[in-house]
Amino acid sequence: MTRNQLESVREFTRAELLDWTALDAVAELPAPAHHRFHDLGLANWWLPGKDGTPGLGLAESVDIVSELAYGDAGAAFTLFISILGTSMVSLYGSDDLRERYLSPMRSEGSFCATLGSEHDAGSELARTASVAARAGGDVVLNGEKFFSTNSGFADFLVVIARSAENPASHVAVVVPADTPGVEVVRRWPMNGLRASGTYQVSLRDVRVPADHVLNGPGLRLLEVGLNASRILISATAVGIARRVRDLCMDYAKSKPLKGSTLLNNAVFAAKLGQMEAQIEVMRNQCLAAAREYDEIIAAPGAAAVFARRGTMKAAMTTKLFCGQTGWELASVGSEMFGGLGYTEDLPIGKLLRDMRYVSIVEGGDDVLRDVIFSRYVIPVSKRV
Amino acid sequence: MTRNQLESVREFTRAELLDWTALDAVAELPAPAHHRFHDLGLANWWLPGKDGTPGLGLAESVDIVSELAYGDAGAAFTLFISILGTSMVSLYGSDDLRERYLSPMRSEGSFCATLGSEHDAGSELARTASVAARAGGDVVLNGEKFFSTNSGFADFLVVIARSAENPASHVAVVVPADTPGVEVVRRWPMNGLRASGTYQVSLRDVRVPADHVLNGPGLRLLEVGLNASRILISATAVGIARRVRDLCMDYAKSKPLKGSTLLNNAVFAAKLGQMEAQIEVMRNQCLAAAREYDEIIAAPGAAAVFARRGTMKAAMTTKLFCGQTGWELASVGSEMFGGLGYTEDLPIGKLLRDMRYVSIVEGGDDVLRDVIFSRYVIPVSKRV
Amino acid sequence: MTRNQLESVREFTRAELLDWTALDAVAELPAPAHHRFHDLGLANWWLPGKDGTPGLGLAESVDIVSELAYGDAGAAFTLFISILGTSMVSLYGSDDLRERYLSPMRSEGSFCATLGSEHDAGSELARTASVAARAGGDVVLNGEKFFSTNSGFADFLVVIARSAENPASHVAVVVPADTPGVEVVRRWPMNGLRASGTYQVSLRDVRVPADHVLNGPGLRLLEVGLNASRILISATAVGIARRVRDLCMDYAKSKPLKGSTLLNNAVFAAKLGQMEAQIEVMRNQCLAAAREYDEIIAAPGAAAVFARRGTMKAAMTTKLFCGQTGWELASVGSEMFGGLGYTEDLPIGKLLRDMRYVSIVEGGDDVLRDVIFSRYVIPVSKRV
Amino acid sequence: MTRNQLESVREFTRAELLDWTALDAVAELPAPAHHRFHDLGLANWWLPGKDGTPGLGLAESVDIVSELAYGDAGAAFTLFISILGTSMVSLYGSDDLRERYLSPMRSEGSFCATLGSEHDAGSELARTASVAARAGGDVVLNGEKFFSTNSGFADFLVVIARSAENPASHVAVVVPADTPGVEVVRRWPMNGLRASGTYQVSLRDVRVPADHVLNGPGLRLLEVGLNASRILISATAVGIARRVRDLCMDYAKSKPLKGSTLLNNAVFAAKLGQMEAQIEVMRNQCLAAAREYDEIIAAPGAAAVFARRGTMKAAMTTKLFCGQTGWELASVGSEMFGGLGYTEDLPIGKLLRDMRYVSIVEGGDDVLRDVIFSRYVIPVSKRV
Repeated sequence: MTRNQLESVREFTRAELLDWTALDAVAELPAPAHHRFHDLGLANWWLPGKDGTPGLGLAESVDIVSELAYGDAGAAFTLFISILGTSMVSLYGSDDLRERYLSPMRSEGSFCATLGSEHDAGSELARTASVAARAGGDVVLNGEKFFSTNSGFADFLVVIARSAENPASHVAVVVPADTPGVEVVRRWPMNGLRASGTYQVSLRDVRVPADHVLNGPGLRLLEVGLNASRILISATAVGIARRVRDLCMDYAKSKPLKGSTLLNNAVFAAKLGQMEAQIEVMRNQCLAAAREYDEIIAAPGAAAVFARRGTMKAAMTTKLFCGQTGWELASVGSEMFGGLGYTEDLPIGKLLRDMRYVSIVEGGDDVLRDVIFSRYVIPVSKRV
Repeated sequence: MTRNQLESVREFTRAELLDWTALDAVAELPAPAHHRFHDLGLANWWLPGKDGTPGLGLAESVDIVSELAYGDAGAAFTLFISILGTSMVSLYGSDDLRERYLSPMRSEGSFCATLGSEHDAGSELARTASVAARAGGDVVLNGEKFFSTNSGFADFLVVIARSAENPASHVAVVVPADTPGVEVVRRWPMNGLRASGTYQVSLRDVRVPADHVLNGPGLRLLEVGLNASRILISATAVGIARRVRDLCMDYAKSKPLKGSTLLNNAVFAAKLGQMEAQIEVMRNQCLAAAREYDEIIAAPGAAAVFARRGTMKAAMTTKLFCGQTGWELASVGSEMFGGLGYTEDLPIGKLLRDMRYVSIVEGGDDVLRDVIFSRYVIPVSKRV
Repeated sequence: MTRNQLESVREFTRAELLDWTALDAVAELPAPAHHRFHDLGLANWWLPGKDGTPGLGLAESVDIVSELAYGDAGAAFTLFISILGTSMVSLYGSDDLRERYLSPMRSEGSFCATLGSEHDAGSELARTASVAARAGGDVVLNGEKFFSTNSGFADFLVVIARSAENPASHVAVVVPADTPGVEVVRRWPMNGLRASGTYQVSLRDVRVPADHVLNGPGLRLLEVGLNASRILISATAVGIARRVRDLCMDYAKSKPLKGSTLLNNAVFAAKLGQMEAQIEVMRNQCLAAAREYDEIIAAPGAAAVFARRGTMKAAMTTKLFCGQTGWELASVGSEMFGGLGYTEDLPIGKLLRDMRYVSIVEGGDDVLRDVIFSRYVIPVSKRV
Repeated sequence: MTRNQLESVREFTRAELLDWTALDAVAELPAPAHHRFHDLGLANWWLPGKDGTPGLGLAESVDIVSELAYGDAGAAFTLFISILGTSMVSLYGSDDLRERYLSPMRSEGSFCATLGSEHDAGSELARTASVAARAGGDVVLNGEKFFSTNSGFADFLVVIARSAENPASHVAVVVPADTPGVEVVRRWPMNGLRASGTYQVSLRDVRVPADHVLNGPGLRLLEVGLNASRILISATAVGIARRVRDLCMDYAKSKPLKGSTLLNNAVFAAKLGQMEAQIEVMRNQCLAAAREYDEIIAAPGAAAVFARRGTMKAAMTTKLFCGQTGWELASVGSEMFGGLGYTEDLPIGKLLRDMRYVSIVEGGDDVLRDVIFSRYVIPVSKRV
């Protein structure tokens, strides 16, 4: 990433993403800000460019997402969450699929959505009930997908479904969004992140060619995809946290207190010193996980390595930690503004609602702790 | 309080206050639910009845408020926050003022609002800039009041203002809401508690008879009034917490997990066991503070005792503790529902927003800790 | 309790229990301080006096224990933990047993120990493997008891054992400490509370008359006994916390900081304000639980009521809460003294070690949360 | 660092540092284990070898210290804390001083101590009252130094003192430990870390050649020295935490619970999953800070860069974070073993005491937050 790229993201954020009241209630998606991000040439920055220039790495993406989320975490989420699906296609799709579905994304700024969760298969993906059945040279999908972000306006979907032929296993299938039978049932009304859209999607006899099935067990591929997205979700916590800190500093400068201002109050200083430390640790943890990811991607046989490993401990740890620490920080921040902090005149209430999602999406803390324990603590050699 | 009274509050809550989406966006105040509470004969229950029957005590009020807030904390707040002003009038007003302003409240279910805070006098009431000036047999009030709950529809206001004659001291003045010069500038858009209304109020040459000034230093009388309201604000935390707990239990019964339901999961059990313990301690602390308050009220010379003592340690401690514990509990609760818990299909996001106010209104934690320290830790004899 | 009694406990504490280095390494038990407490006429204060004067109630005991633990929690524990056994004998023993075993305790200041825990039956008392077998008019006990406080110098023991005749049930048996076959195997070296003694005890063919078996199922009687002791253990947390607070205040007065003293530092004030609030809530919770206990004891049929109810929610909640809050408070306190706070020149390290026991003895937090959940959250009517 | 070196540290730790009861009460220092570490050829590993091989970097040191502290944090502290003084000499001493004082340390495994803190200059080093006065070609030191680790057996000391000629500034002076006038007054009795020795040292007319004064302002040089030591102190938290985790796992395997073992309990799993995540984040933060340090050291003009910068934010943040997180983790761990966890039969009580030092030595959390705030939050450009 050039310094310029990060700088332009920063300028974009300052220009487009600080008007929080509008972004907290985005009716139509993608929103104008999303389009303007594409105009910058940065849409889906992790994908290779048309000219073959490689996409940016995950470590660089951490700082990009942090900058975007400093403005609005919902806008950031909309802009990066396609990575969940694209990394599956990129690692486990045929050349043809990659060419057909990924290439346009960078040039056109389009979106991809991943359809994993179902009503009864939230934290337990093995309960997935959607079915993919072979029918000649095609695959036919049926099912109800509960939460999927971006699917209301994505160009294509990556659908996780149980194999009709082998019910113990699952597949991941690329589906153009305009395939007959794909129906967006509702957009979920969310507590926060309202510049993003998460949808319930119904699949009725959705038929795609069999070569649209990705290569490998579906749940495992989904685990691999989640590595990148969980790390970037964590990076939104860094961005929100930085915004909270700056909001506190701005307020403190003008808030009179005991003959001086809040800025000179030792309790305030202690809280902000603690915040700064927490932000630094959050960012370092995101970067450490992202670098581990980037190293695997850069090495030969990345797809196979990831397929063996599945969920990276570092990705889970990062989301767990940033979710918890971000929440703690935002909670402290939300008490800093007196009564004003409980009004819509300040964005702190919105930042608090936005922060909440980090600990909830793509695996709650209970789920993550459980997986960390069974996969990375029980086996002695996997422990830190 | 008869068992029946609490039971009827409970029934009222179940019937009127569980429809959270409506209550989370109350446009017109008082809302129909507030009127129906009056129909129950319970409006302003802490005031004596027309027939001379005494009002209910603060300890009894704790359970009433907990029940109401189990439904909706904003509705509860609207219904009890008049106590802040009425307790000042009751203790420091003339017989005539009491008769004229308090008596109708019980029979008509009307409201009272207290105008304390100003833009630059939030946590530091000594910075109050509104002025009360003597003019013949009248008092003339001028100023801008920042946050005052219920003032948009109250029958009368209790205004805290600096004395024009003695700028080092303050007065508390009873003002009929329809007095010329009283203008409601705006209703604050709030993060939560949206079935209540908090307003910014402007006072321009507002003239009332001099006997409407309460007897005693205004800031000290306000401190006395805050004793009751802080304890009842804490009781809303108990109610919200109980609702969170029950919501978790209901969800857990139907949520499949690892071949059973979430209800049989040990981590869930541990969280709920912890919640139950926290709720019990919160309630006991509210009751202990309320009983201390009721004892002072029942003893001879209550007005003088309170005037000497000002802010009760127990009231501050209770709000500090219930705000912190309630927030911790609601935070845990908000992670319990997977993705659904981040949608508006469940009220948990609203309960979290509502809980936030406990630590913010009527003195943030930093303010309370500071006062507890200087008044109740520095003097050795005041320590527990 | 007369004001004088509490005052004399306070004086005793100041005179006998502030020399922490000696009390942190008591070799011989009971220690001289325990004897001097008896000289005060207060030993086993909860038991009726010789002249029939009733013992003090549990609410009064809370303040006595808090005072003692302000000095030394180990000394306090030694002085009150007999209540675990005496309350079982008092409620479920024959007149004869009460007369023979309880009456001397008040006049002679002697001790009682309860032998519940075993190596494999710590948190799960149902796994108790010690056996009580009928043999003519006697009962013969065999087993290994893991942790029992005071048994090294108690006059009599209350032993929990499985019934040989009915292995699904247990009994509680009074055993004079000098009965042949009772052997103290070791005194446990403890992390804290070192002015108390906890022992491992072996029982080999220990024979007592059958009328020494208490009336009722042993595990249930033990639960009843634990109600009183858990509340008083919680009260030690109050005492230790008060000591920590005062230690901080003393230190802050003389510690220079930025041209003033630590006492005038806002961060210090905030911490101490928080501590004071926590101490008040802890004490109020202890008192609420103790009063609930005292009410049951005072009502007719107390033994039956307790036998039905077993473990009081309030007792578990109190220990859970005071253990957690006390630990938090002591942790904060332990960082207040700079490097000195990590030396043995100040007692803060010892107070921290002492505080730790509250969350560990008589049921760890995990156990308590589990029982609270299954008994008091699952049944809707038992919730707060 | 070769894989072999870390492996040999690991073996050394397993062989020499797991016998915690002995290490918790080391009477004579250095202890045999310290000597045997030197036999390994690893003493003062960060210094260049005789043959000119460079010392190991700070990032490598993080893992070495973590391994040592897995065994015993006190032994680790003794072995690495010399770095505080050696890094000052290395960066700001003459070639001659480096050759004379640092070279033997690697070959002989000797120690260096830094004498900074004084009774009234703990958190405020600017209050340092010890004085260094020029006397011909010498410098004469007088003063009382409060806490200095290793000074009881170090070969040389680095003393921070006020300049007699320019009382507003300070100097850092290298003093051979056997210089007349240097007197070890006492070894502090510590709450933990008892395989290390911290001493009070008196300086009476201690005379050294003027070229023993390091080049630069003394307090600033001390800040620079603290960068390395604070990061390695944080690394001990990682080691202790790893030990706590493994201790929990070992215990859980054999602890029967509800028909299975504790290992299969979901609450236990959740706690261990959380611990593992915390350990990973702690280690990553240590490494991030150490790499930042190593980069500065490797670049030209390191001494000048450090002199300008003084205290690195990353070093403060790391100690703050690891101290807090380590304490939280050790607190959770200390409740995991039932009653046994409160006895000296298990090392958990000792590990908890050892962990405590991380938040206390070389700047308590309040001090660090204050410095982070004023130096790294107030200036907008320094924020993360």
